Amino acid sequence: MIVLFTDFGLAGPYTGQVTAVLQREAPSVPVVSLFADAPSGMPKPSSYLLAAYAAWFPAGTVLLCVVDPGVGGDRRALIAAAEGRCYVGPDNGLFEIVLRRAAVAQGAAQRAVQGATQCWEITWRPELLSASFHGRDLFAPVAARLARGETPDTMAHSAAPTRFAVWPDDLAEIVYIDHYGNAMTGMRGETVGATASLVCSRPTWGG
Amino acid sequence: MIVLFTDFGLAGPYTGQVTAVLQREAPSVPVVSLFADAPSGMPKPSSYLLAAYAAWFPAGTVLLCVVDPGVGGDRRALIAAAEGRCYVGPDNGLFEIVLRRAAVAQGAAQRAVQGATQCWEITWRPELLSASFHGRDLFAPVAARLARGETPDTMAHSAAPTRFAVWPDDLAEIVYIDHYGNAMTGMRGETVGATASLVCSRPTWGG
Amino acid sequence: MIVLFTDFGLAGPYTGQVTAVLQREAPSVPVVSLFADAPSGMPKPSSYLLAAYAAWFPAGTVLLCVVDPGVGGDRRALIAAAEGRCYVGPDNGLFEIVLRRAAVAQGAAQRAVQGATQCWEITWRPELLSASFHGRDLFAPVAARLARGETPDTMAHSAAPTRFAVWPDDLAEIVYIDHYGNAMTGMRGETVGATASLVCSRPTWGG
Repeated sequence: MIVLFTDFGLAGPYTGQVTAVLQREAPSVPVVSLFADAPSGMPKPSSYLLAAYAAWFPAGTVLLCVVDPGVGGDRRALIAAAEGRCYVGPDNGLFEIVLRRAAVAQGAAQRAVQGATQCWEITWRPELLSASFHGRDLFAPVAARLARGETPDTMAHSAAPTRFAVWPDDLAEIVYIDHYGNAMTGMRGETVGATASLVCSRPTWGG
Repeated sequence: MIVLFTDFGLAGPYTGQVTAVLQREAPSVPVVSLFADAPSGMPKPSSYLLAAYAAWFPAGTVLLCVVDPGVGGDRRALIAAAEGRCYVGPDNGLFEIVLRRAAVAQGAAQRAVQGATQCWEITWRPELLSASFHGRDLFAPVAARLARGETPDTMAHSAAPTRFAVWPDDLAEIVYIDHYGNAMTGMRGETVGATASLVCSRPTWGG
Repeated sequence: MIVLFTDFGLAGPYTGQVTAVLQREAPSVPVVSLFADAPSGMPKPSSYLLAAYAAWFPAGTVLLCVVDPGVGGDRRALIAAAEGRCYVGPDNGLFEIVLRRAAVAQGAAQRAVQGATQCWEITWRPELLSASFHGRDLFAPVAARLARGETPDTMAHSAAPTRFAVWPDDLAEIVYIDHYGNAMTGMRGETVGATASLVCSRPTWGG
């Protein structure tokens, strides 16, 4: 299964174009859109949201993750493997929390994330690579090939991801508000006492 | 075919998570989202909307219906069969109008809904059942098993649904407004004279 | 692959109903929604948007296109073939720009669109044809049959499309604004100089 986690928005052509690439390159693999409205252009809160939801999918799932404000710049393109799942997307911190929690889950020290997980820099490039839509042109074909069973080394080489060690293990911010009005934070439930009160204040950069 | 009728909203992860369960449990069965924006938390108007749209699907369709404000409480979980279609969801009136109209269609008296249709209380429980998302944890696996051809008695026992006899056969309220601005009522077209005027007034509970 | 290009809106039952017809009539063909929010009820800007995005899909794609303010009137129903892709929808200009650009691409004079492309008027009618939803009742079954490999002459006869020759080759209007705030015009990139400035002014019919 290929799972989409993007900030493409619900409307417009982007999810459809990416889905068309996936259907063409991996016809027998189901595609499920998890979020098309991840925090727009913000890899940090998106990273916590992704870690919370990815844990729910079975091993073997390929997650195509595009929250990519640096598209067209020099940020690298990554494949990350953690707890049996495979992630494809930009090297901008989007996988920081997934990788960190996977390392902790294996009892590894935080600085040893590399041992408990694996990362590759994508070196394969398509014939036509637009400046603004790597989700469609680069990440989707790579995700399709992984979902078909190809191994990362056919399109990437081992590389350490850029680390965002300053980000906390649990983020005391609201990262998503759902349709029912539930506000989700970047904190894991088990880190909050059963009788704790959460206080929500306007961020200092607010208007 | 499995058809989704929910108030999950268009955004966010809920439809994706439910679809992932269905794909995993019934891989060859297509999943179609009919409504993700049924009247939010309101089984009564949703029941009329469901009855109007379900009639359009062929026999054999499994409808996974989640408008479930009582999730986590003691409302029961139901399978309902009517006119060859199968419905899975909460016992909160969501299937009242489907069942009633199916009974009428067979010439049965209203009190004999049971004869013309069939209902089961779902007794199967998953290993992990969250308090707030029975759509994913309970109803989706049941819908998948029905779509694969399992019979209700493998996961449920015959039971009468809770009846909402006070609800009218046709509801003179707007139950949905579509993208083009068309307002849909809970009334069947054939009950309204060709020259009738509909007058829309602010409900007494309005602001 | 069947690609949906419609103004049905993201919410509500219309995309779901059309998808259900396609699944039933062409079970093995993937369905991808490209736009559900094409310019609502406006075939002219939609025609430029369609031409820009259709070019991206491979030959063999069937595009089901419904921006159809004249539904229920006497506008004809068309199949159009251009550059290996097949289009199904109303004869209201929606395919004007696709057909024109395909003709130009083959070096044909503009008045010879017919030679470079092909059109058919759909003569097949379903048993039940609603007055307001030809997308579901007429266009979707035709698209499914084409996607299954049937030829247009089994359901249509050769006919010239209504031409909208007064429409410019490139439309200097905004035809779509995406989720990120990018405004798309009806102009092809190669017609705009690299140092050109675009000035956006309020249309004369604006409020």
